[in-house]
Amino acid sequence: MRYAYLGPQGTFTEAALRSLPDAAGAEQLPYATVPAALDALRRDEVDAAVVALENSVEGSVPTTLDELAMGDPLQIVSEIHLPVSFALLVRPGTGFADVKTVASHPHAQPQCRRWLAEHVPDAEWRAATSNAEAAQHVADGHYDAALAGSFAAARYGLEVLAEDIHDVADAVTRFVELRRPCAPPAPTGTDRTTVAAFIGEDHPGALLEILNEFAIRGINLTLIQSRPTGAGLGSYLFWMDFEGHVEDARVGEALMGLRRVVADVRFLGSYSRADQVRPEIRRGTHDADFTEAAAWLTAIRQGHPEP
Amino acid sequence: MRYAYLGPQGTFTEAALRSLPDAAGAEQLPYATVPAALDALRRDEVDAAVVALENSVEGSVPTTLDELAMGDPLQIVSEIHLPVSFALLVRPGTGFADVKTVASHPHAQPQCRRWLAEHVPDAEWRAATSNAEAAQHVADGHYDAALAGSFAAARYGLEVLAEDIHDVADAVTRFVELRRPCAPPAPTGTDRTTVAAFIGEDHPGALLEILNEFAIRGINLTLIQSRPTGAGLGSYLFWMDFEGHVEDARVGEALMGLRRVVADVRFLGSYSRADQVRPEIRRGTHDADFTEAAAWLTAIRQGHPEP
Amino acid sequence: MRYAYLGPQGTFTEAALRSLPDAAGAEQLPYATVPAALDALRRDEVDAAVVALENSVEGSVPTTLDELAMGDPLQIVSEIHLPVSFALLVRPGTGFADVKTVASHPHAQPQCRRWLAEHVPDAEWRAATSNAEAAQHVADGHYDAALAGSFAAARYGLEVLAEDIHDVADAVTRFVELRRPCAPPAPTGTDRTTVAAFIGEDHPGALLEILNEFAIRGINLTLIQSRPTGAGLGSYLFWMDFEGHVEDARVGEALMGLRRVVADVRFLGSYSRADQVRPEIRRGTHDADFTEAAAWLTAIRQGHPEP
Amino acid sequence: MRYAYLGPQGTFTEAALRSLPDAAGAEQLPYATVPAALDALRRDEVDAAVVALENSVEGSVPTTLDELAMGDPLQIVSEIHLPVSFALLVRPGTGFADVKTVASHPHAQPQCRRWLAEHVPDAEWRAATSNAEAAQHVADGHYDAALAGSFAAARYGLEVLAEDIHDVADAVTRFVELRRPCAPPAPTGTDRTTVAAFIGEDHPGALLEILNEFAIRGINLTLIQSRPTGAGLGSYLFWMDFEGHVEDARVGEALMGLRRVVADVRFLGSYSRADQVRPEIRRGTHDADFTEAAAWLTAIRQGHPEP
Repeated sequence: MRYAYLGPQGTFTEAALRSLPDAAGAEQLPYATVPAALDALRRDEVDAAVVALENSVEGSVPTTLDELAMGDPLQIVSEIHLPVSFALLVRPGTGFADVKTVASHPHAQPQCRRWLAEHVPDAEWRAATSNAEAAQHVADGHYDAALAGSFAAARYGLEVLAEDIHDVADAVTRFVELRRPCAPPAPTGTDRTTVAAFIGEDHPGALLEILNEFAIRGINLTLIQSRPTGAGLGSYLFWMDFEGHVEDARVGEALMGLRRVVADVRFLGSYSRADQVRPEIRRGTHDADFTEAAAWLTAIRQGHPEP
Repeated sequence: MRYAYLGPQGTFTEAALRSLPDAAGAEQLPYATVPAALDALRRDEVDAAVVALENSVEGSVPTTLDELAMGDPLQIVSEIHLPVSFALLVRPGTGFADVKTVASHPHAQPQCRRWLAEHVPDAEWRAATSNAEAAQHVADGHYDAALAGSFAAARYGLEVLAEDIHDVADAVTRFVELRRPCAPPAPTGTDRTTVAAFIGEDHPGALLEILNEFAIRGINLTLIQSRPTGAGLGSYLFWMDFEGHVEDARVGEALMGLRRVVADVRFLGSYSRADQVRPEIRRGTHDADFTEAAAWLTAIRQGHPEP
Repeated sequence: MRYAYLGPQGTFTEAALRSLPDAAGAEQLPYATVPAALDALRRDEVDAAVVALENSVEGSVPTTLDELAMGDPLQIVSEIHLPVSFALLVRPGTGFADVKTVASHPHAQPQCRRWLAEHVPDAEWRAATSNAEAAQHVADGHYDAALAGSFAAARYGLEVLAEDIHDVADAVTRFVELRRPCAPPAPTGTDRTTVAAFIGEDHPGALLEILNEFAIRGINLTLIQSRPTGAGLGSYLFWMDFEGHVEDARVGEALMGLRRVVADVRFLGSYSRADQVRPEIRRGTHDADFTEAAAWLTAIRQGHPEP
Repeated sequence: MRYAYLGPQGTFTEAALRSLPDAAGAEQLPYATVPAALDALRRDEVDAAVVALENSVEGSVPTTLDELAMGDPLQIVSEIHLPVSFALLVRPGTGFADVKTVASHPHAQPQCRRWLAEHVPDAEWRAATSNAEAAQHVADGHYDAALAGSFAAARYGLEVLAEDIHDVADAVTRFVELRRPCAPPAPTGTDRTTVAAFIGEDHPGALLEILNEFAIRGINLTLIQSRPTGAGLGSYLFWMDFEGHVEDARVGEALMGLRRVVADVRFLGSYSRADQVRPEIRRGTHDADFTEAAAWLTAIRQGHPEP
């Protein structure tokens, strides 16, 4: 197995990749941008790719969404939730008093603002392209400290001076493992499905129509994002994550409904939820209910309404 | 063929029955009440029955709805629209000045109120069980005139003294032809389907849920009536007529949805509309759209999203 | 006080009228038809009128709905629920073996069918314009027994041979007390409101639009009936009863919404429910929630979003 | 006037700021991160701030949304649409053949991928914290070329070697001008309103409930994004942009409805749309319709239903 990921080494994305069971012993190839990692997968240079999807400290969310929705098709086969936990990395021997400069990706600094103001109030912040690059700069002696995951310390020969220094507890970044289009993994009972629905013309009320397809079948959405498609004003797509698996009858019928009402829909995968949340299946929407209803319809069409 | 109908002879219901192509030469049996006519059909004493469903001058609507929704199953196979047109029937030789009493079903009198006040202002009104019975009373010499359809004149040896005397133009009564449960007549493109949906417990929002099953598939309702089922407070049924035929994909899926969300549903027939109104089929709800969406679902479930 | 009601004396409607606290000692005037009773009220000949609205054994429902929705305006100020309970009335001295004919309104016979088949299997049924008229016919010696409320016995010098002979238990007829348009009675906390909403042109989806106005404010419908208006095909009205009082903020806003989305709406009254059912008021729809939201809106319009 | 913006000088954000009429002659202060720019406004160090909201090549969107929705309140008073147009900036005298390295923000490189592969196929890409920083690196001689807006050339003493080199035409970035909370600018007829709605507990169906508040009043959404609030699983907010101004009656009532149904809602501003699109106002939702409906409600509450 060869995995592509958004590098460089030492990023949260690499940590997410390393948490995958199949990643142990696999080849792990860092790419400089999300599109580069995905193209490597599309060109068959790797077998899978791991990129951030939601709430990333590395800021790659809109790029990932747009690439998956509009680039050559790929498919999500699993997801990884990684707690956001920043550490202050320094060269061995550096103490708090020595920290005059702190480097990080611009998205990391605001997340540690309060801690920095309290513990290294006089340190100046310096921007880096990624937190891993910031760690490299510290290792190179350009800056005194870097904000990064503690897992990055060993990779760059640095030490953890302080841990868990981010201001908001319980932040989580969501990553996805991508493959080339394939049959989805088998349902687990705690599945999520992702689609991108395209609204071709200015179609007010399209969102309500779409949501109704899910609502009448008792399917909860867990994420929704509207994005312009770049094909002119009023041309939108909705990225939607929802509970259930494409093999579930209620999900299948909702997807067919979606297919019928929007200009286009791209299936982006059914996969086990990282948080293992089991959906509450509403009365009348179990697979057995769909089977029973289909049998009843057949009976009345044939003139035998009461079996 | 033997037909049951709500009698006696000379009612609008008999006129409706006579308008059926198959009724010519068939045996036509009047029954005193709607339940009696339907029971005759259930017991195989007749092959079909004709009763009023909507807006009847004979007042049988709630009885018909409740009998069809809750009695032993029967099925609508065709409908008849009959313009409501009252005539003033008298014994031969009677003139306006001779009319001192006018008899009719209590529902007929209000529909001719203004005309009666203008043309026979001094006549007193007398109630009869049906307009046909009123005609019989006139023939028997008990009253001077009867409000009834002009077709009843010949039957009772009466004359039409005035025609089209009802106050509201364009009123129509809707009758249905019933059979024992059977395969529905083939779709004509201008079909109507009737169901009764039962709401078992106090289920606020049930109606909205039901309507959404139709709305998301672009199916228009043409009649809706809530009726208590007699099984306790909060136990309701909705009688619903809507556009389309049970063979239509959009109707089939809506019916299955209905079946899944309500306590029970009874299919009451798909049949050609008397008014020949062709439904506008919304984008994405043609049979071909359902077929295409099902093929797409199969493809993505098998891992071939782009055929 | 003078009350009009659908006569003759001895009907369920008279029994409903007599159950009103204000009816004791008031003048009670029977009218031959529902429109006649309502016109008497419109012309100021009486101060109030009592007519059946729902599930009547006397069959007057469609007439009542249409008269109130489309005739000169009247307003519901209270409602009465009367259990449907039939008795077999006979002349004193008549025994079961003597009953060869049973008379009633055509709607009453089906409701007692099973009992009649069991207890007087050989008796023939005769139609009457009302159950009270049937009782009069029995008193006059034309028939042997009448189906009617037991309260009618005394009025016609008859005896109750058997009581509670209707087949379905717990049937209830709903009557309403009408006045000329007036300020509604004060809210009681267990109120119902009635309106007629007119759909002017063929406006598919109108019903869903209407129901949404109620649903988003957590208001449950207790009755809905579509009725043709007589103004041409596709011109409908919806008669709707729902929980709450016009003085309630959620009801007021829903009514304004209704007013805005339909061709016309007629307010038919807010009044205490006969069954005293207290509505569950959904989170966010109490009067206080509307007041708070209005204060917030004022604040943000003025530039003081956080008070 | 003092303006904060996301720096450094030469970014698209600075170009957006410069397009504001009031910016001419105003003090313009670059900040290293979006939170830093917004905090400067909150602390009164500046009078306004300009940041990217949507589809930014600088990748700041999630940060901006979260800061505005959850940080100390600020308010949008205008928006700016800037066409995305990249140029290749070089030191004077550099030709295509001399370009061995190209630097840019990681989000810029994918947008120019095809052009780069065609015109400078052998150049290696280098990441920078911003395109402006990349330009500075070129000016310093570290790299040969930078991807940036052509407006950045003069600022860094560079030349435009090629213009309009991005692969997707018509891409637009949307920026907003922020102030401390204030009375919104007067309606223009082509307004947009922005809110953040908080869903406190796991409340499936919340989104549908919210959308219905807008839909029944004919208000179209132009952007929707769900975002976790960081307050635990299932705690979400919806960032929503929609047509209309808080002073419009339909918008006011929808906002009050939103206020009542969600855990909390933050008003983020009503302001003129940069694209000047005028909304279609649905039948029944003009200000005059709300005024008429309110007058009607008052009349029926007082007992004068027909004025």
